[in-house]
Amino acid sequence: MKKYWFPSLLILTFLLSAIGHYADWNPTLQFVISAIAVIFVAGFLGKATESVSHYAGQRLGGFLNATFGNAAELIIGILLVSNGQFEIVKASITGSIIGNLLLVLGLSLFAGGLKYKIQNFNVSLAGLNGSLMILGIIALFVPAIFLNTHALQSEDKNVVSLVVAGILIVAYLLWLVFSMITHKDYLADVTEDSEEQLPHEHAPMWSKGRSIVYLIVATVMVAFVSEWLVHTLDTFTEKFGLSEIFVGAFVVAIVGNAAEHSAAIMLAMKNKIGASVEIAIGSSLQIALFVAPVLIFVSHILGRPMDIVFTVIELAAIGVSVFIAKSITQDGSTNWYEGLLLLAVYGILGVSFYLV
Amino acid sequence: MKKYWFPSLLILTFLLSAIGHYADWNPTLQFVISAIAVIFVAGFLGKATESVSHYAGQRLGGFLNATFGNAAELIIGILLVSNGQFEIVKASITGSIIGNLLLVLGLSLFAGGLKYKIQNFNVSLAGLNGSLMILGIIALFVPAIFLNTHALQSEDKNVVSLVVAGILIVAYLLWLVFSMITHKDYLADVTEDSEEQLPHEHAPMWSKGRSIVYLIVATVMVAFVSEWLVHTLDTFTEKFGLSEIFVGAFVVAIVGNAAEHSAAIMLAMKNKIGASVEIAIGSSLQIALFVAPVLIFVSHILGRPMDIVFTVIELAAIGVSVFIAKSITQDGSTNWYEGLLLLAVYGILGVSFYLV
Amino acid sequence: MKKYWFPSLLILTFLLSAIGHYADWNPTLQFVISAIAVIFVAGFLGKATESVSHYAGQRLGGFLNATFGNAAELIIGILLVSNGQFEIVKASITGSIIGNLLLVLGLSLFAGGLKYKIQNFNVSLAGLNGSLMILGIIALFVPAIFLNTHALQSEDKNVVSLVVAGILIVAYLLWLVFSMITHKDYLADVTEDSEEQLPHEHAPMWSKGRSIVYLIVATVMVAFVSEWLVHTLDTFTEKFGLSEIFVGAFVVAIVGNAAEHSAAIMLAMKNKIGASVEIAIGSSLQIALFVAPVLIFVSHILGRPMDIVFTVIELAAIGVSVFIAKSITQDGSTNWYEGLLLLAVYGILGVSFYLV
Repeated sequence: MKKYWFPSLLILTFLLSAIGHYADWNPTLQFVISAIAVIFVAGFLGKATESVSHYAGQRLGGFLNATFGNAAELIIGILLVSNGQFEIVKASITGSIIGNLLLVLGLSLFAGGLKYKIQNFNVSLAGLNGSLMILGIIALFVPAIFLNTHALQSEDKNVVSLVVAGILIVAYLLWLVFSMITHKDYLADVTEDSEEQLPHEHAPMWSKGRSIVYLIVATVMVAFVSEWLVHTLDTFTEKFGLSEIFVGAFVVAIVGNAAEHSAAIMLAMKNKIGASVEIAIGSSLQIALFVAPVLIFVSHILGRPMDIVFTVIELAAIGVSVFIAKSITQDGSTNWYEGLLLLAVYGILGVSFYLV
Repeated sequence: MKKYWFPSLLILTFLLSAIGHYADWNPTLQFVISAIAVIFVAGFLGKATESVSHYAGQRLGGFLNATFGNAAELIIGILLVSNGQFEIVKASITGSIIGNLLLVLGLSLFAGGLKYKIQNFNVSLAGLNGSLMILGIIALFVPAIFLNTHALQSEDKNVVSLVVAGILIVAYLLWLVFSMITHKDYLADVTEDSEEQLPHEHAPMWSKGRSIVYLIVATVMVAFVSEWLVHTLDTFTEKFGLSEIFVGAFVVAIVGNAAEHSAAIMLAMKNKIGASVEIAIGSSLQIALFVAPVLIFVSHILGRPMDIVFTVIELAAIGVSVFIAKSITQDGSTNWYEGLLLLAVYGILGVSFYLV
Repeated sequence: MKKYWFPSLLILTFLLSAIGHYADWNPTLQFVISAIAVIFVAGFLGKATESVSHYAGQRLGGFLNATFGNAAELIIGILLVSNGQFEIVKASITGSIIGNLLLVLGLSLFAGGLKYKIQNFNVSLAGLNGSLMILGIIALFVPAIFLNTHALQSEDKNVVSLVVAGILIVAYLLWLVFSMITHKDYLADVTEDSEEQLPHEHAPMWSKGRSIVYLIVATVMVAFVSEWLVHTLDTFTEKFGLSEIFVGAFVVAIVGNAAEHSAAIMLAMKNKIGASVEIAIGSSLQIALFVAPVLIFVSHILGRPMDIVFTVIELAAIGVSVFIAKSITQDGSTNWYEGLLLLAVYGILGVSFYLV
């Protein structure tokens, strides 16, 4: 009995959410149904990730999760770019980065820290993650500073944007080579050895092949439900008088990252903090170093060039998020209070964006 | 004989300073007497702190010292807020933060480092202190950036200020829970073990109860003498043509933190660098995360709302101080040259503030 | 036979380059000859450095290399200051700092990392280098921020510049005392012990005395050839329409640091990463904390006062370079990907400076 209620509710809420969306039901009803559906699909994705992570190791599992999670964001981004809605794209990129670094990582460290006094992950990985985050910031700050202090022609702006985007994509692809191939052991999870001694504790529900299929299916479901939910939010934005940037940076980021949230927190509470960090930081790195630059290239291919220049408050928000996340993770050791510090910064940014 | 000269001079200079203040003697005379009295009361406070620190452990002792030291600043701040002198309040908050991070910490590391080649303190504490400092900076930077780039209504400015102040106070109180209760051992002083083996070296002068009473009495005396001394400085400001911000950020900070100075340096020279750092960094954290936000709430209660927006040069001064202090302390190991680097930054800020 | 071709070509290209310069040959021909000569003299300097480094230890060898390398820059700087070409001086100071931190260090870590999976150097040195870099940034940022937000009189600007320059020179000289005298062992190279076991591998070509003489001769040759080469670049600047700041910050920096490049990369590939880092970071620190302040004093002595205020994009470029270099080196462990990250930032700055 217990075995079937979860898949049943998962499929039911998903279908209801789909019907509501395409039949154009009342927005408030659509919102409620989609929000419930998100909980179930996020839970499904979390289980699939955990299972794949069992077979693949914490880091590869975390990477797969981050990638599938961001596939949805990439698709939504391309749709927005093709409509020329550059401000919303940049706001939601900003929101994804700070949402992952502050909210997802903060809740994971907090929840994990309440259960385990100190949680450790590979300190070399922590250092490299920090340096990659700084590359992402520099790639956004430098063009903004140069273009703000020197009035450049539109053409030069596009050249800077494309070159910087190209550098980021190359850096990201080589990061995959480095972390998955040449220095895989060097970045291995510190707790992996001890896990081997407790195989029964983490016995997976599904076979390796089924886990991968479920991971893909769950990701696709999350992508659809997220979009349906985001769609209903537009109506809310107008109703409650929220600014586009607040909705992009906070509401969309919270909802759109529901999958990362649930998976990362669940893993943290099982003391797999390495995988949690990989999801949260890995996902924000993927947005900054891969999704954002790809969107710039796509915008040029579509003939509506988007530049890489973010607004001052977006840069400030990304900058402070990276600054505190780097400071907290760089020793490879975490506790509940560090999670709380990240959430405090999220709160400060939240109230600031809300009032703008 | 030797036993009585110190308390005698302590009481004598304190009384003379009090009489001079209330009888409104010549300002120059008042200044000289108060300055001498400060030396004695600061020495008294240093001894009381050391004694309490013997019973309570380095960290709790340092915390008590920082709290009693900042009680004076809180009282002076409330007086200034009730007079609507917001610029001076913010300048003296700035001065307390940079004075503690650069001057007190710098002199402690320098003096301790001349005597001991390398001094170590808990590296986990160093990391957390760094993250807390960053939270303090973010809380000041974010409102300033958002309010400078988007003209907000006065009401919204107050909302941001109150929410951010509330977040800081909660974060500070939970930091006490974390550092004093849930993770006390984790942040314990690294040298405490070895101290146990040398109890005779640190034999305290007074009993536990008497030490605590003396700590409170000394703090109250420091608060009074500091205020009398600061009072005479107003006359000096006009006489020598110094700007209010320079007096607030440097003169008041040096005099007002005399107690922290003497205690921190004395502890560093006894190789209790953990307690020194706790006084210097703990005191600046307490100002940023507790005293400043409480003053904002008090200003609203008094009906003269003060916002949290500091000037660009105040933010720059706090920012660079945190940046260098974090870099120097994050490895939990200090030497004389690192103290000197902090003093160099203090000098750079000093000449810049002097000429503005 | 093999023994003589290198010195022969070294002297031949050097002489041809000299004749071309003084006989005022065709600029393109001068450029080609000087560029070839630079390769040989840089190679000669690299060998001499390696030999001296064998006798003196990695760090002292690296320091000597950095000092001799920057002697050339100091001389060129004095010539430019006496001509009142302050913008070019500041652009080339900027270029030297970012060239050393990003290009020289980046290529060293990359080349060394391709050969050795992980390379380690003294972690305490890494931390102190980071703090010194931050002092250098603060010394440039604080005057710029104070002077931009408060219109100061020219006289006050000079006072700030001289005081800050004086503080930097004192800090640099005391750093030499600290690192060469009081804490020499503390900062010793981590791999030195293991080297002792393999003396035959590093057997030097020359005696100690001859190595030192060759180091001085090679440095002088590099200084001359660099200047001749830089001289030809002025013509190129006009021909290809490059901005002065791009030429100063990139072309001059690459050519003028050819010696550091070759020496640092060669040492990295021999697993002497400590010496590589000392050359790259040590050289940029020497420029920021010694060469730049000395040029300010010289400018006042020559009666053409130069201030310490750099442009916004120069500050941004130096700031991001320090930020990423500090993040990458602070754990005292390096790999090929970290080198690549530094080169990515160099590329981002390069395209931005190119288009301004």
